[in-house]
Amino acid sequence: MAGRQARKNIPQRASGPALWASVGARVRDRERKRDAVIMTAARAFRERGYHNTSLDDIASELNVTKPTVYHYVENKEQLLFECFRAGLKLIMDGIEEQRESTTTGRERLAAVISRYAEAITSDFGWCMVQAENQDLSPAMSRKVKALKSEIDQGLRSLIRAGVDDGSIRPCDEKMTAFALAGALNWIAHWYRSDDQLAAAEIAHRFIELFEQGLQPR
Amino acid sequence: MAGRQARKNIPQRASGPALWASVGARVRDRERKRDAVIMTAARAFRERGYHNTSLDDIASELNVTKPTVYHYVENKEQLLFECFRAGLKLIMDGIEEQRESTTTGRERLAAVISRYAEAITSDFGWCMVQAENQDLSPAMSRKVKALKSEIDQGLRSLIRAGVDDGSIRPCDEKMTAFALAGALNWIAHWYRSDDQLAAAEIAHRFIELFEQGLQPR
Repeated sequence: MAGRQARKNIPQRASGPALWASVGARVRDRERKRDAVIMTAARAFRERGYHNTSLDDIASELNVTKPTVYHYVENKEQLLFECFRAGLKLIMDGIEEQRESTTTGRERLAAVISRYAEAITSDFGWCMVQAENQDLSPAMSRKVKALKSEIDQGLRSLIRAGVDDGSIRPCDEKMTAFALAGALNWIAHWYRSDDQLAAAEIAHRFIELFEQGLQPR
Repeated sequence: MAGRQARKNIPQRASGPALWASVGARVRDRERKRDAVIMTAARAFRERGYHNTSLDDIASELNVTKPTVYHYVENKEQLLFECFRAGLKLIMDGIEEQRESTTTGRERLAAVISRYAEAITSDFGWCMVQAENQDLSPAMSRKVKALKSEIDQGLRSLIRAGVDDGSIRPCDEKMTAFALAGALNWIAHWYRSDDQLAAAEIAHRFIELFEQGLQPR
C-alpha cells in the first residue's frame, strides 16, 4: 500500500506501453521522413536523370540540409537502390498476397500484372527500369539483380501454378515471364502521368492480350 | 580515223563504266569501313557502356587514328545514333518486305516479330534500347524518337491490317504494339550471345504466346 501511495506522488513518467508508443511514434516519424526522401529522389531521378541529380538538389527540394539526407541514406547510389526497391516492393507485396489466394494460377497472375502496372506507372517506375543502367558499383549491381530475379521467379511460379491447375496452357515459363516483364517494364518508357489511360486500364488490356492472344478464337 | 589512232596511242585511262566501277568500289570501300566503325562502336558501347567508351577506344580497337574515325562520324553521339539506326534498319527492312506480301496481317506481323528478335539479339541490340537513355542532345533525342515512332507505326499498321482481314481479333492496336515492342526490346536486357536459345527460337516462342495467349483453347 505504501508503494502504491509513493507511486502516486512521483510525477508520471512514460512507462511500459506508453514508452513503447513514443518509440513507435519516433520510428514512424523517421520512416515517414525517409519515405519522403525516397519519393522526392524517385521523382527527381525520373525528371532529370540519375547522373544529373545531386543529393544537394534533393535536400533543397525537401528544404533540409544535405547531412539530413545522409541521415537516411549512405549515398546517392543507395538512394537510387531504395527507389528501385520501393517500386519492386509493390510487386512483391502483390505476389505475396496471391500466395493465400485460392483462385487459379491464371487469375493470380492477372492480379500480379495489375499490381505490376500500378508500380511501373508510379513515381518509382523510372528507377525500377533504369537503376541497373546507371553504372552501379558491382556490389549494388548484384543487389539490384537479386531483387529483379525474385520478381522473375515470382512470375514464373505463378505461370507454373497456372499450368499445373490447367488454367494456363503448357508454355515456356521462362520466356513467358520475360515477355510479360518486358511488356510491363516498357510501360515506364511510354507512360506519362497525364496519359489518358490509367494503370488499371493498361493492365486490363495487357491481361486480355496475354490471356486471349491475337488470334481470333 | 586519225582520232581513233590517237586514242590508241595514249595510255589507257579508266573511262566510262570502268571509271564508274572504280568510284563504286571506292564508295563500297568507304561504306565497309564506316560499317566496321559502327559495328565496333556497337560492341564497345554494349560491353562497357556509352559513357565509359571514348572515340579513342574505338579507334584503337580498329587500329586506326581518331581522325580516321572522325572521317566517318562527326562525334560520339552521332556514332551512337548510327548504331541505333543500324539496328532499327533491320526491323524497318522487315516491315518494308512485308508490304509486298499477300499473307494475312497476323502472318506478316509474325514475320516482323522474327526480324525484330534478330535485330535485338544482334550487336546493335544494346544501342537500340539504350540510346535514348544516354543524355542525348535535344536534336539527337528527336531523331531517335522519330525513328522509334516509325517502328511503332509499322507495328500498329500490321496489327490494323490483321484486324481488317480477320486474322487478328479486334484489339487496342496501340497497347498491343507497346506490349510487343516492350517484350521484344526487353530481350536486350536478358539475352546473352552464348544463350542456349537462338533469336529464331525466342521469336517462335514469343509469336506463339502473342498469337495463342495463355488461356487454353
